[in-house]
Amino acid sequence: LTLPLTEKAIIGRIRRQAEAPSGRGVVRTGIGDDAAILECAAGFEVLLTTDFSLEGVHFRREWHPPDSVGHRCLVRGLSDIAAMGGEPTAAFLSLALPADLPQRWVDRFMSGLLRLARQFNVQLAGGDTAESPAGVLADIVVVGRVPAGRALLRAGARAGDSIYVTGELGRSAWTLSLLRERGPAALGAKTKSRYTAHAPHFYPQPRIAVGRWLRERGLATAAIDVSDGLSTDLGHVCEESGVGALVYEAAIPRPSGLPTSSLHYALHGGEDYELLFTAPGSRPVPSMIAGVRVTRVGEIIRGRDMWLVDSHGQRKALPARGWEHFGGR
Amino acid sequence: LTLPLTEKAIIGRIRRQAEAPSGRGVVRTGIGDDAAILECAAGFEVLLTTDFSLEGVHFRREWHPPDSVGHRCLVRGLSDIAAMGGEPTAAFLSLALPADLPQRWVDRFMSGLLRLARQFNVQLAGGDTAESPAGVLADIVVVGRVPAGRALLRAGARAGDSIYVTGELGRSAWTLSLLRERGPAALGAKTKSRYTAHAPHFYPQPRIAVGRWLRERGLATAAIDVSDGLSTDLGHVCEESGVGALVYEAAIPRPSGLPTSSLHYALHGGEDYELLFTAPGSRPVPSMIAGVRVTRVGEIIRGRDMWLVDSHGQRKALPARGWEHFGGR
Repeated sequence: LTLPLTEKAIIGRIRRQAEAPSGRGVVRTGIGDDAAILECAAGFEVLLTTDFSLEGVHFRREWHPPDSVGHRCLVRGLSDIAAMGGEPTAAFLSLALPADLPQRWVDRFMSGLLRLARQFNVQLAGGDTAESPAGVLADIVVVGRVPAGRALLRAGARAGDSIYVTGELGRSAWTLSLLRERGPAALGAKTKSRYTAHAPHFYPQPRIAVGRWLRERGLATAAIDVSDGLSTDLGHVCEESGVGALVYEAAIPRPSGLPTSSLHYALHGGEDYELLFTAPGSRPVPSMIAGVRVTRVGEIIRGRDMWLVDSHGQRKALPARGWEHFGGR
Repeated sequence: LTLPLTEKAIIGRIRRQAEAPSGRGVVRTGIGDDAAILECAAGFEVLLTTDFSLEGVHFRREWHPPDSVGHRCLVRGLSDIAAMGGEPTAAFLSLALPADLPQRWVDRFMSGLLRLARQFNVQLAGGDTAESPAGVLADIVVVGRVPAGRALLRAGARAGDSIYVTGELGRSAWTLSLLRERGPAALGAKTKSRYTAHAPHFYPQPRIAVGRWLRERGLATAAIDVSDGLSTDLGHVCEESGVGALVYEAAIPRPSGLPTSSLHYALHGGEDYELLFTAPGSRPVPSMIAGVRVTRVGEIIRGRDMWLVDSHGQRKALPARGWEHFGGR
């Protein structure tokens, strides 16, 4: 079933679907004016992040069900707010759609996005729509708030700090490698169970509660979300903090049941949306925060270099390999 | 000259170019962390608007020089902030580029965007980059501020209000029609003079000062920017305010030297980025505001219909014809 997608129809639909009340109520005027109006609570600062989700680059329609594309679109921004220790409050969606896209695809995309928004009490407060020259193009803006001066930054890691990550790494990239090599059938015979069995890839959870916990305790000296892979994102922390790092290969939390090649995914694979943070070596860090496992994977050192240390204590250079999206580069 | 555009190179370049200090200083942490941190001034609300600029939809590389594309990308957001009576403070640019795009094109695009940003004291504070599957894809977020509760809204026009527009209407659509019918050569023999002679299309000015003036005087009952054409944007005001409108054909300010067909452009052509506002019929409105001509073009009436009134006093229905971008629909 293919219906013409006029901008008015899209906006009207988004507006109706987005009119769920927001518990935080920071959005005074949302969709339906030239700009949204957001209230500022005294003593807070505003966080803002923006992320593309482009067909053929960040997702493929033949691999990702529409509600997963919507979910993953929003999680990119929510995860950035988590990494700052913030609370997400509002989202803005710019969405360009091919003229022949079935309306049902758009409905399911919005349904996946709005379900995740409701889960975190985030109001869809505006955006833009256009006809796309090629494929589905989405850009998500997520706005959040944080007590003034308390955001977790990438800069701040110091030699002697321990490095921690939440959850497990490499699961999302492993799913992607299966899709790339053998197509969706590699994930299981039944369509629906594919997506639940591979939920870390299709429906990743942003670590909002962990970020807030870290900010409230003042424990983390630096934090980032692992969206581009451990090596790349740790590299950002090192660069912004002016430090180096040791990573203990055996300590990296990897999902069970994955092939031994999964170390590569854990080090360099993207889209896990876990948090990486540093904390002074002298301060105890619990093994679970907000219900999520936390693992010490290394330590911050002087210098600017990153090293991977194997189980024999041998070091080799750990290059920051940029996460390659589907398109390659 | 074609250079590979790695994300790091783009971000590094944008970061260096964007590091011009902002006079308003609302951006505490910009490019280089998971999210930007914006300060909230007491007594202010935050405005936020987002707009696509897609190649083949909003511009064509063979028609628009790169600095005009950058300028027009930002002006879309600035004009929305103007229509709310706000002050723009920060911008966020999501930019997806084809792998074979010359670096020089990107530099000139950024130069056009950043020149306009400096003119209005707006700091480029973040964004996203990606490789584009097709053409240049930009999405601009502009953040502004307005004293709490004082933003100019689309809702608020009442029967008996007069309708005003700034500047002249139809100039941008007329340029576009020349480009569409006869290509860039239709604009003049010399490349450079084409763009200055047709500046309202290539380098439109956002009416920030007019919006602020209206907000400070409390004169406007409703306001919108004329980005999609007079009929469509007046239609938005009527819809949000629950009113109808009369528009006096002879009163519509049109540029001199245009063919008689220019009435069509003035009524339905987009991208003029002038302001349309309503004010009580009893209140005097100056003929110039902040150096920009202001013209009374009609009045708000009861009901929900819009009418065009000719010089004989005859009414005909004025349909809100959505602005058709280059792609048609």
